[in-house]
Amino acid sequence: MKVKLAANYGFCFGVKRAIKIAEDYKNSSTMGPLIHNQDEINRLKNDFNVGLYNGLEDVKDNDTIIIRTHGIPKNDLKNLRKQKAKVINATCPFVTTPQQIVKKMSKENYSILIFGDEHHPEVKGVASYAEDAQDVHIIMEPSELENLEFKNNKIATVAQTTKKKEKYLEIVNALILKNKEVRVFNTICDATFENQDAAREISKEVDVMVVIGGKNSSNTKQLHAICKESCDDSYLIENESEIEESWFKNKTLCGVTAGASTPDWIIQQVVNKIELIN
Amino acid sequence: MKVKLAANYGFCFGVKRAIKIAEDYKNSSTMGPLIHNQDEINRLKNDFNVGLYNGLEDVKDNDTIIIRTHGIPKNDLKNLRKQKAKVINATCPFVTTPQQIVKKMSKENYSILIFGDEHHPEVKGVASYAEDAQDVHIIMEPSELENLEFKNNKIATVAQTTKKKEKYLEIVNALILKNKEVRVFNTICDATFENQDAAREISKEVDVMVVIGGKNSSNTKQLHAICKESCDDSYLIENESEIEESWFKNKTLCGVTAGASTPDWIIQQVVNKIELIN
Repeated sequence: MKVKLAANYGFCFGVKRAIKIAEDYKNSSTMGPLIHNQDEINRLKNDFNVGLYNGLEDVKDNDTIIIRTHGIPKNDLKNLRKQKAKVINATCPFVTTPQQIVKKMSKENYSILIFGDEHHPEVKGVASYAEDAQDVHIIMEPSELENLEFKNNKIATVAQTTKKKEKYLEIVNALILKNKEVRVFNTICDATFENQDAAREISKEVDVMVVIGGKNSSNTKQLHAICKESCDDSYLIENESEIEESWFKNKTLCGVTAGASTPDWIIQQVVNKIELIN
Repeated sequence: MKVKLAANYGFCFGVKRAIKIAEDYKNSSTMGPLIHNQDEINRLKNDFNVGLYNGLEDVKDNDTIIIRTHGIPKNDLKNLRKQKAKVINATCPFVTTPQQIVKKMSKENYSILIFGDEHHPEVKGVASYAEDAQDVHIIMEPSELENLEFKNNKIATVAQTTKKKEKYLEIVNALILKNKEVRVFNTICDATFENQDAAREISKEVDVMVVIGGKNSSNTKQLHAICKESCDDSYLIENESEIEESWFKNKTLCGVTAGASTPDWIIQQVVNKIELIN
């Protein structure tokens, strides 16, 4: 069976970078799972002895601790550094940017608005960099602006990297109409949308699609839904063991894409197996 | 005839302020007409000996020169001050603000985008405050963004005070999608729109409307069009001499509004005359 990979799939730049860092620091521990993929976490444990800590209380003297792509709150980082642990910061540069923007803007007396999920580790980390914790506001919807009280009429705004631009603009527009100055930092990362665009493209060219990723991963499910729009025979699998030969009967070209937490080696195993099917 | 004035009409804050300044500086000259109303310019000439200069070449030593609400380009102001003239700056504070924003942002290496008419004196003045004349861009439509080349990916943007917010947001949104940082200053003045909103309101309550203003004034014509939407019997006049008694036959309440260049004394003469009609 002939296989064609989507133009963009799988890990984004930040995750690839963090995994490379983990491989470089054997015998270290990540603070929280580095990625939502148990197979990859197992691989890092087995091949590089990279362990997993769930909180600061796990850390022991002389540990090497890897901060994951989402980053962590400023004080957690400070506390980690106070302990005699070696801290390796694998925070995605696209997340470090909004952290530093919030820090700087807050120092310059801007009220801070973050478009994102207040429970998400990335957003918690970014918000923690504000000088004035009472003047950082986190919202998911433009309607939430009504209940906010900014201390200044100068607002600086950033977005969680995975958010949609359209909704960010809605929020920004409402801010502009009510404030003298709005300083808009476009911190949205294109990676998620590039995978989606590429999935949309390739699913039009092929007669069968295989989407690889966690069955509970919302970004993988979204890729699957996009593929189904153009290609009825689109299958969602977690790894090569789920492939069924019958899917490829009378088909000529199989498209492959993968969710943002799917490592290349799992994708390669899937491709290899499909290519062996007659 | 009973008369009701619109909640907002006539001169905006900046024009009222400039005329007050002109009255305070007898024997001065304005650099260009202070207002698009010949009757008011004549009044200032007759009552306060305020003259009219059309260019820097008119200025003589010891003249007192009044800068009008629109402001003037930075170098013109500098040249005026070099001459032995006394300069009285009646630039509207709502215009001084974007001038100072452009100056500061340009110094901080932001590329400057101005939403407005490049031929309008206000916009010419605002644009002149940029440090780098090659990196100030003036547009009227979002589509014009395509042809622009900014020197930086940090953009600061201001709008001509009389522009529409909706189109400003369209331009700002396009900028945000293409640039790392967009610093949006909402420099649009509500005065024009407040007159329009008030005209819309009052024209629903009355059975005849009189709109006072220049027959060639676009803002007066717009007021007239708005009034006609709700009140068929809406008349546009320049002064009280054009009033016709027949307009008020079988009517109970006459609404009055006026364009942004119509002085209060002309409005008062109109109101007085209508009130005398049975």
